[in-house]
Amino acid sequence: MSDKLIIFDTTLRDGEQSPGASMTKDEKLRIARQLERLKVDVIEAGFAASSNGDFDCVQAIANTIKDSTVCSLARANDRDISRAAEALKGASRARIHTFIATSPLHMEKKLRMTPDQVFEQAKQSVRFARNLVDDIEFSPEDGYRSDIDFLCRVLEAVINEGATTLNIPDTVGYAVPELYGNFIHTLRERVPNSDKAIWSVHCHNDLGMAVANSLAGVKIGGARQVECTINGLGERAGNCSLEEIVMAVKTRRDYFNLDIGIDTTQIVPASRMVSQTTGFVVQPNKAVVGANAFAHASGIHQDGVLKARDTYEIMRAEDVGWSANKIVLGKLSGRNAFKQRLQDLGIEMASESEINTAFAAFKELADRKSEIFDEDILALCSDESVTAEKERYGLVSLSQRSETGERPHAEVVFTVEGKEIRGSSDGNGPVDASLKAIESHVKSGAELVLYSVNAITSGSTESQGEVTVRLQLGGRVVNGVGADPDIVVASAKAYLSALNKLESQAERVAAQG
Amino acid sequence: MSDKLIIFDTTLRDGEQSPGASMTKDEKLRIARQLERLKVDVIEAGFAASSNGDFDCVQAIANTIKDSTVCSLARANDRDISRAAEALKGASRARIHTFIATSPLHMEKKLRMTPDQVFEQAKQSVRFARNLVDDIEFSPEDGYRSDIDFLCRVLEAVINEGATTLNIPDTVGYAVPELYGNFIHTLRERVPNSDKAIWSVHCHNDLGMAVANSLAGVKIGGARQVECTINGLGERAGNCSLEEIVMAVKTRRDYFNLDIGIDTTQIVPASRMVSQTTGFVVQPNKAVVGANAFAHASGIHQDGVLKARDTYEIMRAEDVGWSANKIVLGKLSGRNAFKQRLQDLGIEMASESEINTAFAAFKELADRKSEIFDEDILALCSDESVTAEKERYGLVSLSQRSETGERPHAEVVFTVEGKEIRGSSDGNGPVDASLKAIESHVKSGAELVLYSVNAITSGSTESQGEVTVRLQLGGRVVNGVGADPDIVVASAKAYLSALNKLESQAERVAAQG
Repeated sequence: MSDKLIIFDTTLRDGEQSPGASMTKDEKLRIARQLERLKVDVIEAGFAASSNGDFDCVQAIANTIKDSTVCSLARANDRDISRAAEALKGASRARIHTFIATSPLHMEKKLRMTPDQVFEQAKQSVRFARNLVDDIEFSPEDGYRSDIDFLCRVLEAVINEGATTLNIPDTVGYAVPELYGNFIHTLRERVPNSDKAIWSVHCHNDLGMAVANSLAGVKIGGARQVECTINGLGERAGNCSLEEIVMAVKTRRDYFNLDIGIDTTQIVPASRMVSQTTGFVVQPNKAVVGANAFAHASGIHQDGVLKARDTYEIMRAEDVGWSANKIVLGKLSGRNAFKQRLQDLGIEMASESEINTAFAAFKELADRKSEIFDEDILALCSDESVTAEKERYGLVSLSQRSETGERPHAEVVFTVEGKEIRGSSDGNGPVDASLKAIESHVKSGAELVLYSVNAITSGSTESQGEVTVRLQLGGRVVNGVGADPDIVVASAKAYLSALNKLESQAERVAAQG
Repeated sequence: MSDKLIIFDTTLRDGEQSPGASMTKDEKLRIARQLERLKVDVIEAGFAASSNGDFDCVQAIANTIKDSTVCSLARANDRDISRAAEALKGASRARIHTFIATSPLHMEKKLRMTPDQVFEQAKQSVRFARNLVDDIEFSPEDGYRSDIDFLCRVLEAVINEGATTLNIPDTVGYAVPELYGNFIHTLRERVPNSDKAIWSVHCHNDLGMAVANSLAGVKIGGARQVECTINGLGERAGNCSLEEIVMAVKTRRDYFNLDIGIDTTQIVPASRMVSQTTGFVVQPNKAVVGANAFAHASGIHQDGVLKARDTYEIMRAEDVGWSANKIVLGKLSGRNAFKQRLQDLGIEMASESEINTAFAAFKELADRKSEIFDEDILALCSDESVTAEKERYGLVSLSQRSETGERPHAEVVFTVEGKEIRGSSDGNGPVDASLKAIESHVKSGAELVLYSVNAITSGSTESQGEVTVRLQLGGRVVNGVGADPDIVVASAKAYLSALNKLESQAERVAAQG
């Protein structure tokens, strides 16, 4: 008989904590819906007590998601836990995930608490949380570098207080598989009543072994929950990749003998959505979701490779949601065909008026680009200018020119709360000039910390360009995305989208785990 | 007493085999020199028998590199091995790496040979190779999926014929650490005279476990050579990452107790060089070499993270070659300062006239960009237009304009073997129009399979844009790179650079491993 392996996704919490990956509420909701389609067991939606914005996100996700458990992180104190419980009120299934550091270094340097104080606080917090919600996860932060006797004492106490999941993080990515697997095994052997809780692993990828460490925790240690993120998003080298864990357990079922509830065909759509939203590119040689991960997906036709596919591929590209670029719509497609395609792609629009705006943008694109791919539609719908009516800034028109020996110049017409503004500037290049033309009026003072462009579809110079602009202002970081066949226009759209987010995003405290 | 772990880099062979990653001879030489600075023990320079172009590359690297062993791949036949030996003639230390598939699937489907035929051919080939070179590596392709009795028989035979290194590839990335480690251990126990050879591991990352599998081969199996590539470059999900292997063994010396000869401060420069040359981006959350791998390197200032650096970082960024962006040169810097900076950056220019061209390009850039960073200089020197005198195509000037509601238009003046040509075209955007303006005269018919842009330095809209253009024509794939503060100009440069490479690159047969 095989056991079930619980997939706990923390893209929206630990993933989002990565510098530069912050997301708006709408973006988080869209990703949460995709995680539900992916059938992840638990969605960690955020850290409710860290800010009002985070509270709203957790609440909105709790109120929306029906099939997955929705979880909020909370430090081990009553206020954090109460806020988490409050945000989770509307959830079909709610989990509170409370944590406190147990390693000597973290207790001393970060918490400035004695081990006995940490022990008491862990115990009290789980007791408090258990009165609010049935499903309680406890994490000893930096658990893998903790004193094992002390850790056993803490874990025993929180099981007795009713913790239902015990998660052992390798917070700094220091583990190797054999040692981490043995560590989990020893804990489960030594802690009384260890069978009353589900054991969980949470690994970081600093030495490139997050997946193998997690799986050693499962195979050797007997853990039955893995915490992971889409694309391995996360601070530093990131968290364990959901897609790698899932495909390893599925492909090597002969070894792991575990069931997983994930709908793997939703993996690539989820990967693209997270990458487009955060501006964190996925490298071509990334396992499972990289453009080259399957021979046929690289866009390059290598006869030998295609012929020998069986001999070199251990997974099927279709099984993880890769599909060949196909022309899905054209100039003559009507509103119904467009709406149907949105549904097939899992894009939910809030209102008919949003669909109208998106359809108008589609028609405008179809006039300029003869073949419209799924990727184009996804880009178009993630482009905030489509839903610009509710946004502060929107692009109206742009003209620019550059010539060798002269300074590039741009004139941008954009709306500020419905009012048209005309800005012009020169710059080092047409993109620089266009952004400066906008900034000359907006005067946000934001610093550009990332600018990147990717062609959305390959195979033609007529591809759209998708531009990501990351702005930083007073400790806040936002990503704006814009798509257009004209790269300068896409850049201006991305900049305006980032400015819109800068207006709406609030500050919050940093969490670890 | 600790053993030495041999680092065998195959960026230039297995890495380059990745669809889209092909490199020119000059690019390979530049990377080989960087690998020598990195102090890798063995550089696999290519597959000499696969084409005349590959032969030239292996020969050039063998004649240049003094401190590392230079290796050529060769199928298990006399012709391949003779070509490899010939290409390696000038090497200080030469190795021939011969391979033949031993798994039932590969023997039947790919080779159409019986096991006995494979056995004989492996034996004969190693005997033949050993008469030409002392240092012989043998790989049973798809070794991990081979019948273990048959594999032991083959390995015993090649040791008796004088193979000095036995490499066991997990060709399709199917292994998990425990099983792969045990597999190597069993082979070493069962094969007579196994102690007469050094055992080597070669893992692919399809399930995200290449590093952990390799290290299990070392720790459990007793292997003492790891085959790897910079950035984990390679087919599909790539090979084992050099930077992750090296930093895992160094950071967890308590567990591995192995010495490594690598100069880790050369890791980040090597990573950038390979990424810029191939157009394969490194994702920000990539271990060791990703932009976010160390908190301070993300370009985002998070007080908390910086303060708590000790608590969250297990490696030091400086130790792997990260350095803060610094202004190194400006408008007033002279030729000597520039030349000195080139030397510090490890850039070797073939002649004084090349330095002059590069210096002129530097002065031109400094006129337009007030702060010049190391990254700008690296981009400038990897820009083929700097050494355009020997190239077929070169950019002279470009003018373009776009305006909402009108079709973007570009006019490009470029040289074809010294003669100036003026091309003009409209397009979907100014980049599309510029490339079409060039193509309207060149008529290469090449397909654009990748277009990407990255800002070279962050922190200012005045960053240069670095554009990579990947073209495919009749089975050949080339990457062109161009850098300029004006993204349209950078695109035109990249396109011309790709066309130059298309002219010079020859076809060759595909290798596996």
